[in-house]
Amino acid sequence: MPITTAPITDIPAYMQQLGINARAAARSLARAPTAMKNAALLAIADELNRDRAALLAANAEDCAAGAAAGLDDALIDRLALNDKRIDAMIAGLNEVAALADPVGAITDLNYRPSGIQVGRMRVPLGVVGIIYESRPNVTIDAAALCLKSGNATVLRGGSESLRSNCALAACIERGLIAAQLPATGVQVVATTDRAAVGVLIASPDYVDVIIPRGGKGLIERISREARVPVIKHLDGICHIYIDDRADLEKAFTVTMNAKTQRYGTCNTLETLLVAESIAPDILPRLNSALIEKGVEIRGCPQTQALLPNALPATDVDWATEYLAPILSIRIVPDLDAAINHIEQYGSHHTDAIMTEDYSRARRFLREVDSSSVMVNASTRFADGFEYGLGAEIGISTDKFHARGPVGLDGLTSQKFIVLGDGQVRGG
Amino acid sequence: MPITTAPITDIPAYMQQLGINARAAARSLARAPTAMKNAALLAIADELNRDRAALLAANAEDCAAGAAAGLDDALIDRLALNDKRIDAMIAGLNEVAALADPVGAITDLNYRPSGIQVGRMRVPLGVVGIIYESRPNVTIDAAALCLKSGNATVLRGGSESLRSNCALAACIERGLIAAQLPATGVQVVATTDRAAVGVLIASPDYVDVIIPRGGKGLIERISREARVPVIKHLDGICHIYIDDRADLEKAFTVTMNAKTQRYGTCNTLETLLVAESIAPDILPRLNSALIEKGVEIRGCPQTQALLPNALPATDVDWATEYLAPILSIRIVPDLDAAINHIEQYGSHHTDAIMTEDYSRARRFLREVDSSSVMVNASTRFADGFEYGLGAEIGISTDKFHARGPVGLDGLTSQKFIVLGDGQVRGG
Repeated sequence: MPITTAPITDIPAYMQQLGINARAAARSLARAPTAMKNAALLAIADELNRDRAALLAANAEDCAAGAAAGLDDALIDRLALNDKRIDAMIAGLNEVAALADPVGAITDLNYRPSGIQVGRMRVPLGVVGIIYESRPNVTIDAAALCLKSGNATVLRGGSESLRSNCALAACIERGLIAAQLPATGVQVVATTDRAAVGVLIASPDYVDVIIPRGGKGLIERISREARVPVIKHLDGICHIYIDDRADLEKAFTVTMNAKTQRYGTCNTLETLLVAESIAPDILPRLNSALIEKGVEIRGCPQTQALLPNALPATDVDWATEYLAPILSIRIVPDLDAAINHIEQYGSHHTDAIMTEDYSRARRFLREVDSSSVMVNASTRFADGFEYGLGAEIGISTDKFHARGPVGLDGLTSQKFIVLGDGQVRGG
Repeated sequence: MPITTAPITDIPAYMQQLGINARAAARSLARAPTAMKNAALLAIADELNRDRAALLAANAEDCAAGAAAGLDDALIDRLALNDKRIDAMIAGLNEVAALADPVGAITDLNYRPSGIQVGRMRVPLGVVGIIYESRPNVTIDAAALCLKSGNATVLRGGSESLRSNCALAACIERGLIAAQLPATGVQVVATTDRAAVGVLIASPDYVDVIIPRGGKGLIERISREARVPVIKHLDGICHIYIDDRADLEKAFTVTMNAKTQRYGTCNTLETLLVAESIAPDILPRLNSALIEKGVEIRGCPQTQALLPNALPATDVDWATEYLAPILSIRIVPDLDAAINHIEQYGSHHTDAIMTEDYSRARRFLREVDSSSVMVNASTRFADGFEYGLGAEIGISTDKFHARGPVGLDGLTSQKFIVLGDGQVRGG
């Protein structure tokens, strides 16, 4: 089934035009008052509500084409829109409108000996490029967060969702126009040609940052080929270390939650480390509860000696993000061994210690180099909403710029402002 | 004259070894207590003081080789060490030791409805690669700032300074060892082979960020070819806009300071914008004072009509960082025209407005997209020391991660920490 938009043949020229549009819109969006941005978010919500029939029709075409092309059920499920999902998009827009505006916030404004006052003002990054899979809800989520943070956005969703995204883009455009913001403040790349991604990630003149969302292979390729900064999320190999001074009741509850509340999320527990001296006190009970949930256990030889059902864990297990009902367990002599294991095999995403020992908690917090480091809490809390960021555009496993859940602040930067009364520099 | 170190033939293998060393050292440095890092800084200062003869001898060889190779006087001057410059390095090390340690600082630690406390802890970036010209003082400055911020460092200075840098590296290494920190926490690339730079900037496994310092051509090339994040400084085309509601006495003083205090710095005024209605009141007086200082004036036609000595300014002038006693002047109708000029021709470095008008000052601060935006103060204040950062590794003209003067905080990132009592995630 042919897509409804005219085919775009000159990809570099098309992408350059998007870039020029985005750069121009970014300047207006950076200056836009809070009320105007909120009005646009609410107007987009209205448009989605009013345009349900067209959105569902476009999406039905995408889903039919996807099914015909042999897309598996999980992908079709992510691609599909229905009234409930449109309601969720509308709710998301309202939530982002209710968040505080990060742009223009001034902090640390202090007098210096010279008499000038120096502070920092939060400003948008400029143009944000988002590359994602065929999930139309991301189109609205990403557009909302970028708009609220004063950035222009170029959205490149998966090919299978092009009709849905173009329909959503029409709603967004009308909402922007209704709020007297530039219509090109949010643009959807209206071609499935993969060359468009190559141009987008290599255009530092038009794009200030790329946020890829999707499979690890895609993200690695984009990171490798990008000529602009990338905020990326790679593996989530999350650990809990149960210290020999842990409250075993808490350790049991937290471990079960971290592993079994959801299996497919990046902050799900993948490897449990247990202090040798308390392993016999906690592992059999955990094992029974995990078996009951249908979780497969893979363990080190010591774990296998304690838990007859445990399959052997290999070095590959320690370095694997299962995203499945599988847990690898390793018994370690002490905190140092646990930290070393996390450093060697972890992915610097989210790691927790269960302990009642003050000094060990302090050491774990300082020495574990992960985007989220926790004491006595489930790794599942690593999330923008749970952290109070209001929303998240993704979770960064990078160190540069933004680490961990990335909210509105992560889509901004800070410039210096100087207030004086005619001061000049001496010396 | 052959350099004293054995020639390094297998550059990729050599650089990989440096990278492995740096990565291992970074882990120790990230955990190093403040007192230990300060002890290392002071021990390095002691070593420099004790080793003056060897440092001066190595530097004399560099200078002699440079002169023989036809290096111009300005470059030789930057390359040359003497007792006063060694004193300045020692003073710098003491100053950095006296700064607050950014690593481990916890901010924004707040309770969430779930009962967990969520905050941010400042952490080092990891391994910092610095690429710079033949200025041995940068070796010590950069090493000191990276060490204090808990980062490992790989230093690649200009070829002409290799002997000096190797001699300095020996002092640094002894200082690190004296403080029981890893000897490879700071490493100098001991080869003049340019391939080493190529490997350094394309090794994301071993290098977390590159900071190039030097000419624009070098920085552009490194940014283009780097496969790791770059904190960079490009042009400093700084503006002052004298509004028609400016205090003309302040405007005169600040403009003279911004243009004439030093000509060759990145925060020096390059283009003066003047509101039409007050141009006749201020430009002739400024012109006389600038002529007296030997500054050449290049003006728009309206400026030329007021100032007979003004040469014509072209579009090239508006886009040029003179770094010289030359000032371009443009008369503009109003604030909007000034902001548009800065947006079109500026380099997003440092721009100032002179005005007593509250609303215009507010608009300029919000709407000018530069790393430093000032009201009634000299652009020359754009500097890490003047801003109270204690020291600076450079000034970033990027938006991503760090903008403006980059101090210790710019060499760090923030991870999330979560403190709980056994909380689990519901829903």
